[in-house]
Amino acid sequence: MSPALTDRARELDARHAATDLRARFRLPAGVVYLDGNSLGALPAGVAEAVADVVHRQWGNELIASWNDAGWWDAPTRVGDALGRLVGAAPGQVVCTDSTSVNLYKAVVAAARMRPGRRVVLTDPDSFPTDLYVTDAAARVAGLVVERVFPGDAVARIAEVGDDLVLASYSSVDYRTGELWDLPAITRAAHAVGALSCWDLCHSAGVLDVGLDEHGADLAVGCGYKYLNGGPGAPAFLYVAHRLQDDFDQPLAGWNGHATPFAMAPDFVPAPGITRGRVGTPPLLGMLALEAALAAYDGVEPAAARERSLSLTGFFLECLDTLVPHLEVATPREPARRGSQVSVRHPQAYAVVQALIARDVVGDFREPDIVRLGFAPLYLTHADVLRAAGHLRDVLEHREYERAQFRTRATVT
Amino acid sequence: MSPALTDRARELDARHAATDLRARFRLPAGVVYLDGNSLGALPAGVAEAVADVVHRQWGNELIASWNDAGWWDAPTRVGDALGRLVGAAPGQVVCTDSTSVNLYKAVVAAARMRPGRRVVLTDPDSFPTDLYVTDAAARVAGLVVERVFPGDAVARIAEVGDDLVLASYSSVDYRTGELWDLPAITRAAHAVGALSCWDLCHSAGVLDVGLDEHGADLAVGCGYKYLNGGPGAPAFLYVAHRLQDDFDQPLAGWNGHATPFAMAPDFVPAPGITRGRVGTPPLLGMLALEAALAAYDGVEPAAARERSLSLTGFFLECLDTLVPHLEVATPREPARRGSQVSVRHPQAYAVVQALIARDVVGDFREPDIVRLGFAPLYLTHADVLRAAGHLRDVLEHREYERAQFRTRATVT
Repeated sequence: MSPALTDRARELDARHAATDLRARFRLPAGVVYLDGNSLGALPAGVAEAVADVVHRQWGNELIASWNDAGWWDAPTRVGDALGRLVGAAPGQVVCTDSTSVNLYKAVVAAARMRPGRRVVLTDPDSFPTDLYVTDAAARVAGLVVERVFPGDAVARIAEVGDDLVLASYSSVDYRTGELWDLPAITRAAHAVGALSCWDLCHSAGVLDVGLDEHGADLAVGCGYKYLNGGPGAPAFLYVAHRLQDDFDQPLAGWNGHATPFAMAPDFVPAPGITRGRVGTPPLLGMLALEAALAAYDGVEPAAARERSLSLTGFFLECLDTLVPHLEVATPREPARRGSQVSVRHPQAYAVVQALIARDVVGDFREPDIVRLGFAPLYLTHADVLRAAGHLRDVLEHREYERAQFRTRATVT
Repeated sequence: MSPALTDRARELDARHAATDLRARFRLPAGVVYLDGNSLGALPAGVAEAVADVVHRQWGNELIASWNDAGWWDAPTRVGDALGRLVGAAPGQVVCTDSTSVNLYKAVVAAARMRPGRRVVLTDPDSFPTDLYVTDAAARVAGLVVERVFPGDAVARIAEVGDDLVLASYSSVDYRTGELWDLPAITRAAHAVGALSCWDLCHSAGVLDVGLDEHGADLAVGCGYKYLNGGPGAPAFLYVAHRLQDDFDQPLAGWNGHATPFAMAPDFVPAPGITRGRVGTPPLLGMLALEAALAAYDGVEPAAARERSLSLTGFFLECLDTLVPHLEVATPREPARRGSQVSVRHPQAYAVVQALIARDVVGDFREPDIVRLGFAPLYLTHADVLRAAGHLRDVLEHREYERAQFRTRATVT
């Protein structure tokens, strides 16, 4: 390994020592885990919190826990905790359902807030569920979906003008890690009287998203990536305060009712973000997520972002030195980069397998992407250098030609 | 206590000894738990299964568990296990989302399977989320909802005739425990070319529902009542094999795609019941439910039904002897009774609180219902007699006039 890079890793780790929070996680020994953008690592305290939910809250206290253990209010309480990490003041985020279901609510509700308008813009390279759900929502709401590259969105928004309902984009591209311009697209949408919706799956916990600051209207995101909520952790929905009274979402379930226990025959939406709820919340997962968010205690989004940029920036430095000819798919400018570095390789899937054999866990994305996510809280610059060294070795020795292929691994 | 009833309890418990499965549960000592129709008790083995999911599958194995621990296939695997308990052959039930969300899918998909027809029938006394969701689905699908009492449904279905899309009913009334005629309503719907949808929240695990046998088309239900899946356990959706190719549900998410990892730009529904999936499944809750279903190992639905009827029948006997003037809201005929006995009292809420103070846990439902659910697997006839004795004492001594009111307890 390059002594210069080793020194540089040591220096950067010393400089960022205040945000080295690996002790807050239970990672398997010896692994460099670069897949926290698919499934975040297990935070300390989560297993104990879940055991308490199962044994005491459920097993012993039974239905009394709906009140005594705060089950009923968990969606808004956890929503507020999530909101802090994406720049949303309390009362605007609810933890509920999946990202897909929440996006469906957002798109249909947007159509109802902008009657007479017909067009939704979204990114042709979105994570596919965003495309499918946007199409599905457009179908019931009578909208037309235009797939417009985010780099062209501002211009296209101006052209569509007062026929635009919604600009619905991911803040970070799930494949390349490119960070799109949430403030500019949001401003452009507002300039024509339309709304913006942001998918924060690859942003929450690693970016200084600033939903309130930038005037975002709607947002969705998942709890199981950088937020470390566990497999299939419930997702979240953000609706800006100013829109909540008009937020008329299509999944009118009893948990979103103004008086759920009155058992009234007709739906009256609850005031505030509670109307984003639908059915009984998935409490095991939600309370695991709540416990997981303690890993972010005392960490401001800007601090997580700073550490994330330092890690990804240093990884790019390492690649430049160790594997200079490798094609990097992620923008080099910090302002255009999320918290991942993706590289392209014709044998990308096998490269990922060979890295896993060396205890460097990343993932593959179609068609040729080796995707490496850098969760700021539990990775160090020393890990980053180690990962880059293994990547160099895999490529230099062509280990991908003899990698044991595991069954195809998964998830977003 | 009446010696005759004590003898009778002993005799019934001896007769039904083969289905006394209380050892499969972890109930708090001394409690007679009659609220398993709100939140089922904690089955043995669930805490250990959840701890394994958290520590080993998530914490140590991380993303590899999507394949190695069977996470990806959990919704259909758990769906099949649920299906066995409601009379559905494998491949027709998927465990996913909440009951509310699944009902929305079912109603919109029904409209798409019966284009040109406009009317949905549902019960004015349904659990409210069914009313809200049916209205919400009708709104996007261009349908008209008629609220028709289930006892009048067969006649009204014939009148509506070929304008009927769907008869959507609960198999058991959540308040009174009355069991409706699923076979007759289903036949009537089919006679006019329409579909039937059944909410099994208060049926699954206690009735011999027989979805396939009776030709039901669609069904939904939750995992946290008699199925004991834990707070907010994921729900299920049944679509009969013969309808699956045409089941075009509105929440087109990537988990329901034919090739989810191809990241294709357009939605192509998966074959079979998988198309009922939407987003990433809530695995903590789903795997807890899977472990909970082991409590039903070796128990046929008919056996659970037989024990349930014996328990509720004996409770009615006890009431007749001990509190003969109490108004019973639940039908006395076994064929018209689910697995609960509800009684009416002007101070119903206080009566429930006074019972809880005596470690007999039931719940209150508006306006005047004391609702007592009899989960067959973990209750004995001795428990039933004990509960009836406490109820007599509460009423005789007017304990409800001095019951300490807890904050209002909840959930369905």
